[in-house]
Amino acid sequence: MAYSGSPVLLEELLIKPTHSLIDQSLHSRLGAETTNGDGFGLGWYGTGERPAVYHSVAPAWNDRNLVELADHLVSPLFFAHIRASTGGAIQQTNCHPFRHGRWLWMHNGLIREFSTVKRDLVLAVDPSLYAEIEGSTDTEVFFFLALTFGLEEDPPAAVEKAVGFIEKTGRTHGVEHPIQMTVATTDGTGLWAFRYSSEGSSRSLFCSTNVATLRAQYPDNPALHELSEETCLVVSEPLGDLAGAWNEIPESSYAVVHEGQDELHPFSPRPV
Amino acid sequence: MAYSGSPVLLEELLIKPTHSLIDQSLHSRLGAETTNGDGFGLGWYGTGERPAVYHSVAPAWNDRNLVELADHLVSPLFFAHIRASTGGAIQQTNCHPFRHGRWLWMHNGLIREFSTVKRDLVLAVDPSLYAEIEGSTDTEVFFFLALTFGLEEDPPAAVEKAVGFIEKTGRTHGVEHPIQMTVATTDGTGLWAFRYSSEGSSRSLFCSTNVATLRAQYPDNPALHELSEETCLVVSEPLGDLAGAWNEIPESSYAVVHEGQDELHPFSPRPV
Amino acid sequence: MAYSGSPVLLEELLIKPTHSLIDQSLHSRLGAETTNGDGFGLGWYGTGERPAVYHSVAPAWNDRNLVELADHLVSPLFFAHIRASTGGAIQQTNCHPFRHGRWLWMHNGLIREFSTVKRDLVLAVDPSLYAEIEGSTDTEVFFFLALTFGLEEDPPAAVEKAVGFIEKTGRTHGVEHPIQMTVATTDGTGLWAFRYSSEGSSRSLFCSTNVATLRAQYPDNPALHELSEETCLVVSEPLGDLAGAWNEIPESSYAVVHEGQDELHPFSPRPV
Amino acid sequence: MAYSGSPVLLEELLIKPTHSLIDQSLHSRLGAETTNGDGFGLGWYGTGERPAVYHSVAPAWNDRNLVELADHLVSPLFFAHIRASTGGAIQQTNCHPFRHGRWLWMHNGLIREFSTVKRDLVLAVDPSLYAEIEGSTDTEVFFFLALTFGLEEDPPAAVEKAVGFIEKTGRTHGVEHPIQMTVATTDGTGLWAFRYSSEGSSRSLFCSTNVATLRAQYPDNPALHELSEETCLVVSEPLGDLAGAWNEIPESSYAVVHEGQDELHPFSPRPV
Repeated sequence: MAYSGSPVLLEELLIKPTHSLIDQSLHSRLGAETTNGDGFGLGWYGTGERPAVYHSVAPAWNDRNLVELADHLVSPLFFAHIRASTGGAIQQTNCHPFRHGRWLWMHNGLIREFSTVKRDLVLAVDPSLYAEIEGSTDTEVFFFLALTFGLEEDPPAAVEKAVGFIEKTGRTHGVEHPIQMTVATTDGTGLWAFRYSSEGSSRSLFCSTNVATLRAQYPDNPALHELSEETCLVVSEPLGDLAGAWNEIPESSYAVVHEGQDELHPFSPRPV
Repeated sequence: MAYSGSPVLLEELLIKPTHSLIDQSLHSRLGAETTNGDGFGLGWYGTGERPAVYHSVAPAWNDRNLVELADHLVSPLFFAHIRASTGGAIQQTNCHPFRHGRWLWMHNGLIREFSTVKRDLVLAVDPSLYAEIEGSTDTEVFFFLALTFGLEEDPPAAVEKAVGFIEKTGRTHGVEHPIQMTVATTDGTGLWAFRYSSEGSSRSLFCSTNVATLRAQYPDNPALHELSEETCLVVSEPLGDLAGAWNEIPESSYAVVHEGQDELHPFSPRPV
Repeated sequence: MAYSGSPVLLEELLIKPTHSLIDQSLHSRLGAETTNGDGFGLGWYGTGERPAVYHSVAPAWNDRNLVELADHLVSPLFFAHIRASTGGAIQQTNCHPFRHGRWLWMHNGLIREFSTVKRDLVLAVDPSLYAEIEGSTDTEVFFFLALTFGLEEDPPAAVEKAVGFIEKTGRTHGVEHPIQMTVATTDGTGLWAFRYSSEGSSRSLFCSTNVATLRAQYPDNPALHELSEETCLVVSEPLGDLAGAWNEIPESSYAVVHEGQDELHPFSPRPV
Repeated sequence: MAYSGSPVLLEELLIKPTHSLIDQSLHSRLGAETTNGDGFGLGWYGTGERPAVYHSVAPAWNDRNLVELADHLVSPLFFAHIRASTGGAIQQTNCHPFRHGRWLWMHNGLIREFSTVKRDLVLAVDPSLYAEIEGSTDTEVFFFLALTFGLEEDPPAAVEKAVGFIEKTGRTHGVEHPIQMTVATTDGTGLWAFRYSSEGSSRSLFCSTNVATLRAQYPDNPALHELSEETCLVVSEPLGDLAGAWNEIPESSYAVVHEGQDELHPFSPRPV
């Protein structure tokens, strides 16, 4: 879940919705895994120069500190992630969101046969970034590849190059469909959300509908009047059942959210 | 899961079965909760005077130490438990099995409105035992009540008295159905398994069929020839699908397993 | 460590001082224990109605989430505590500060022979509060005794009564010196710090000197000019070596801090 | 601590000695760090084909499961390690001993400026072994370098080559003294213990004196008569104060223990 909008108390996003992320951690309806109990992570922007991250190895539904934080943290930009490990160790250094400078990155999906391709992918990471890799996940390596290919300058191009490189490397090792992904990343100002898979059959990804549109559609819903105009939520599964509130981000595309405007663009891996 | 029989490597029980306990922790088929990710516990008898216990707050499916232990521990008597908390904190002192001297105790179910009745129940625990209570669960208090009522001398009578006392206390506080339980307890020699609920609609509990009977029924199944005659497994859910291998312990009854023989008796709470 | 004053970033208190609390967790100079590695806790007042608490079982020097929080939390009132267990389990429910409504409570010291006196102390807790006790520490029972004796109405009187009751109970059980304590408590507005022990030889406790006094003494020290007039820090060990900055709270006394004014009063247990 | 000898109950080694490893975790007398609270690990040989490992992120003095295991595990070969992190994350994948096949490896010391040299060292690891690296420590990379240079065939030569490579790599990056180490490794039969540092001033390492010699010296000490002839303990700090029981392994040398015989040899890094 990625939130960008007017400053909000975290529990409004994380705990109060009907089908909140904490509820999803126990009972996912759309995910590849029904239980996402292999750790949890938060990222948010506040007083510090860089965003804060909170990483926990406990299932989200069990973490009391998370409930405390949700009741006290206010921010205009939150990332939250529940993990279902595809084999990697359950440890804080494997929890999303990952951070580099002002950037946050989280991912739902996998690089297939990662143990086979990992060495080639890691070697391609810029040596000056290499020592920052702390965990053992595919997601962190993917993030550092995107940074290597220019994430901080041109996020869509960098992700397209990183995916191009991952696909090329996977195919060299005989992997038919090297990557399955939904990715969200931010520098604290803009927010980018990508949906792609080598096989053209990606996990779900939704973006909340423009608040003004929703208000016109539901003039009597008070909840919609509390939201600021520029509110945008990107989620793997809708947080509630309000018809029209969630738009699926199409296969092989990405959304850019900036100052409350979001745009959709096609996504295609680039050769590198 | 409670095992009594010839010494066995733990992984044969915990990891290899089709529908093993670790698998059940992620996907329970019969349980009240589909996910049992709120900690794990083992108890076994070995070189020490008292049984060993291993308590973990991680979900069973994530605990690497558990896989290591399963590959090395051999014992004629194992208890294993996966927890789905009904609200209590996730901490080692709340993990089953609980231990006192040579006794182990584990429980699937709950004492209803426990926060309301807890004080009265705890006050009834023998003062000499009181200081041993370390956690905050209903199960541990239930165990110390059973000890107070003579578990070490006459287990069925003690459990019937403890349940009688819990029901009386609950009803004093207006709780309609004070207890829902399946309990297993052992002193390292005998094994007792109880199934009861105030409403007469208890959680599932199964006992493995006598090995000689199964061999006669399935003469060509090699797995059955590796088991010793006195093998007995008590489980909340069958570990596999072999027809005839599992007998449901009926409502309001208990099984006594001793030297490979098991007997069924009716269970009824006693006034105290 | 208890801080009351103008809103401050937690890391200014917790991480930056020469002899910070995190440093003290590894190398205490004045404490009864040289290592305080048995968990950590924070409490602070912010957006929620009640204070937030963050409880960790990791040693403070190892907790990465703590460093993240310290870099982002701003509050006018912080409690922080490093634990050296005197035998109790290392679990979040045993971490200080404890909370009830708007109150926080933390303690350095012990109730002697706690396992002997625990039952009598717990029985004296108001039954309406009993179910809130979640952990197994002497500190939490002490807090609930103080609440029972009126902490929310008259904190000094309630603590004097709780200590009187603890001493009476201990002596009934033949404990020569039943309590050794420094306690800090707050309702988010006032702050009370107590130093007392049955044997008249208590652990250290210090209160920061009035900022105006310090500025007059050190006109050239810029750090003192950033502090607001009403800043007050209560600590078990000074955070730095500035001469005159720390005043020892005397044996058998307590300090009341309210709107930047602090007063010292004698403390004597009351019969109950 | 590495033990090789007749099968022994772990608690005899880990808990009962005057200055046991658990005691050392809180109060090291000879170590570079006085507190070793950053995790714990055990390795032992038993029923499985490969040794078992138990890795914990809790300080050893706090780990209740460890006390339980110590009371029940019997093995002729134990490795135990207490960690004081030099910066790496506190996670199970960073706990010693590390394992590959039948080999265990543990290390006290550090590769200096590891973040600078890490990439070059990791690239030198055999690609077929690369995917087994799970953690982020210098020790694990050192182990995989030794495996790459033939640890399974000729342990002393492989370690000399690995250290030669580490020193060469460090010096290329301007590190004056690239390594400080005491290492123990075993395949379940032989045991090798190395003491070396680039600056010629290594951490302490001791080997227990031959039991027959000790018995002749202390004919009235019953403890010595319970030990088998082939008992050998390798430790960073002596476990007790019996004069003559511990021999320091000299600077730049290694001990080979095989069937109760131990030999000392000089150690010198080899160019690769």
